[in-house]
Amino acid sequence: MHDQDQPIAAPATALAPAAISVIRCSGQACIELVARLFSPADRLQQAPGNTIHHGTLRTPDGEPLDEVMVAVYRAPASYTGEDSVEIFGHGSPAGIRRIMEALFAEGFSPAAAGEFTRRAFLNGKLDLTRAEAINDLVRARTVAAHRYALDRLSGSVEQAVGAVRADLVTLMAQLSIQLDYPEEDTGPVEVDVELLDSCEQRLHELAGTYGHGRLVQEGIAVALAGRTNAGKSSLFNTLLRQDRTIVSELPGTTRDYVEALVDVLGMPVRLFDTAGLRPAGEPVEEEGIRRSRTVIAAADLVLYVLDSADGFGEEDRRRMADISLHTPVLPVWNKVDLTGTPPPEGGVAVSALTGAGLRDLERRIVEAVGEERAETGATVIDSARQHDLLSRAGHALDRMRESHCDGLPADVLAVDLQEAVAAIGEITGEVTSDEVLDAMFGSFCVGK
Amino acid sequence: MHDQDQPIAAPATALAPAAISVIRCSGQACIELVARLFSPADRLQQAPGNTIHHGTLRTPDGEPLDEVMVAVYRAPASYTGEDSVEIFGHGSPAGIRRIMEALFAEGFSPAAAGEFTRRAFLNGKLDLTRAEAINDLVRARTVAAHRYALDRLSGSVEQAVGAVRADLVTLMAQLSIQLDYPEEDTGPVEVDVELLDSCEQRLHELAGTYGHGRLVQEGIAVALAGRTNAGKSSLFNTLLRQDRTIVSELPGTTRDYVEALVDVLGMPVRLFDTAGLRPAGEPVEEEGIRRSRTVIAAADLVLYVLDSADGFGEEDRRRMADISLHTPVLPVWNKVDLTGTPPPEGGVAVSALTGAGLRDLERRIVEAVGEERAETGATVIDSARQHDLLSRAGHALDRMRESHCDGLPADVLAVDLQEAVAAIGEITGEVTSDEVLDAMFGSFCVGK
Repeated sequence: MHDQDQPIAAPATALAPAAISVIRCSGQACIELVARLFSPADRLQQAPGNTIHHGTLRTPDGEPLDEVMVAVYRAPASYTGEDSVEIFGHGSPAGIRRIMEALFAEGFSPAAAGEFTRRAFLNGKLDLTRAEAINDLVRARTVAAHRYALDRLSGSVEQAVGAVRADLVTLMAQLSIQLDYPEEDTGPVEVDVELLDSCEQRLHELAGTYGHGRLVQEGIAVALAGRTNAGKSSLFNTLLRQDRTIVSELPGTTRDYVEALVDVLGMPVRLFDTAGLRPAGEPVEEEGIRRSRTVIAAADLVLYVLDSADGFGEEDRRRMADISLHTPVLPVWNKVDLTGTPPPEGGVAVSALTGAGLRDLERRIVEAVGEERAETGATVIDSARQHDLLSRAGHALDRMRESHCDGLPADVLAVDLQEAVAAIGEITGEVTSDEVLDAMFGSFCVGK
Repeated sequence: MHDQDQPIAAPATALAPAAISVIRCSGQACIELVARLFSPADRLQQAPGNTIHHGTLRTPDGEPLDEVMVAVYRAPASYTGEDSVEIFGHGSPAGIRRIMEALFAEGFSPAAAGEFTRRAFLNGKLDLTRAEAINDLVRARTVAAHRYALDRLSGSVEQAVGAVRADLVTLMAQLSIQLDYPEEDTGPVEVDVELLDSCEQRLHELAGTYGHGRLVQEGIAVALAGRTNAGKSSLFNTLLRQDRTIVSELPGTTRDYVEALVDVLGMPVRLFDTAGLRPAGEPVEEEGIRRSRTVIAAADLVLYVLDSADGFGEEDRRRMADISLHTPVLPVWNKVDLTGTPPPEGGVAVSALTGAGLRDLERRIVEAVGEERAETGATVIDSARQHDLLSRAGHALDRMRESHCDGLPADVLAVDLQEAVAAIGEITGEVTSDEVLDAMFGSFCVGK
């Protein structure tokens, strides 16, 4: 992290071939620094804010780097609130690297993850709930996750907690009057219990959206398990074809399991095919089996795939029992096209071959993780930080209520109320610390 | 491909999470169409060209889509030469999809691959050699490839072939005079042979850069082969660590082989570790072995890895002979740290463990494909289309020279000369057909 205002630069698009790449620059003298590499240089130096200019970037030796468009933003009318430049080049990884090297040579430092948004926060362009919403927006993998993030970006969390905070300040003012005259015994401390209830209720409701918000943002992890020939991989592939596949094979997957991201009834589902789940034969497979077990243990739900023709054997019984110790299991009877018999109660009958029963299976997946309800219009949070602070504020109000019931004096109640106000202030970032900012912005993309 | 001027739109950045995404729009009324989704709408409608505006995109129902910056370009001062808009949003795949759907609902059509650049060509913004250079630039994977593409984008090929074309037109004018008076026997046809030589020479030289250009752009394919415990994977990993890894594992690779792209002495090398190359045991492996063999057969060079301690066995002899029937093979004696003996002539001694001999190996890789020379400052082509047309022009001039030697009349020579001029006209796109444009722009990214 650099001193605020120091010129920073970073690619803002992926280092992969694409039509256009974007490099972002912000900080003191940043327009002048980019102009040193740009011709016609004077056009940038004299550019008003919010204008965009065609030209060539060259090293100081005159070696061409790219033909580009350069957008100029003048403080405070920019994302960060500082003078800023965006360079739109041809989307070549090699080209991005060359331009970045030239920018560093001119005095730019590489921006840390989230540093542009951190500067925007420090310059009062947005509060912390909106800053977190920006990161959520970028990482949103389904329309539902995107909608929630956009709602938070519009300030819905800031408004909701701001309204609670205003009410808590009213409660504090009422207490303060009674604090000011501690000597006079005016009877028991008066608290607007209805307003306190309402505050607790709203904090509780917002905190309660976290589980749903997290699943919508991160995806439901569903692992396929079962015997080798039960048809796990066929079912995996059928679900991929049937559903809106978001990412068919995630990078970095090993040969031990395959992961895909699909949109199941509006929910992002991370589907894992644990091909490696079989008794350890060759020693080389052991690591794979260990990883498959880890995937199953970490899943939100395991689909245990059974062959309808083979039925439910002793091995299946043992394995399902093992898995169900730590993870919910849904038995899936595959190949019903061959047998045609209804599955035992609690199971789902499907045919990976014909696609029969797949919609039913999808409904059951979403139900199994408690996501059958359709949320509309509500503000939903997905930030563990916000959830913790909302809970902390809620607990402080609980304690305040107890103290009130116990007839304790106003100054005791004020301590808990103050803590609730402080926790809410941390949510929006009125009160914050470098550690909190480091942790939050460290999870951002570079360039954001 | 749409009628020119019809409004088209496409994402211009990868559908992957990133700080910023870009959506490109071009065509008639495109500023007005985007303004329908943008608030404040009038700001876009009235925007002068080359300005950039902050606002919110919403569906006609008022559902928010993203908070964006929108750049407005007015014809002819745009990439395509038409009115154009670029939308800079948060780099979320879900968000890009939602915005694209809204644009299509407003009347935009999805842009075909390369359609923006094709429109730029049709509107006279660039010739075909520059259009191809843009595609090369995007796909450039090393600094060398990027430099060559940028040189072509600056018009070096257009200038080089334009100069030859001007000289051929001079030759044609000289012939024409003799064509105009065919009845008068003025003796043998006069041809400025020195100028003809120079033209042929320049066409030949430019065409001759193609092999080098193609390797710099596409990469040298190097496959590792050898017995199971010779240390192929260790050598693969050591080369990855040692060299500037561009892509450590390419998406879409199967478990049969692993591919990585590394920068070896400035050349992009696509390195393949064919883990599957062993005698077919389990039937499930056979497909993998078949694919490994295909990789080896398609490679520019095979590094046959031998264990220095084990020596050169009968199996190695047989395999190397098999491979060398179709692909050049370089024997690599691994684990020299254990034996310390120099390798037999023609081989390279390395230690994947200590890194000994790796620089030598890299030099030998680049030499083996004839790339040891350092090209500087020269114009280098990498387009098969340009290469074919240069060759066609060269052959036409060859025939013209022969006809001249044989004392044939001016009209016979003129036919060949005319063909050479036409071929060169096709290189820059003075003369062209829809098929040629379809083939060329079809290989572009969407959004370019």
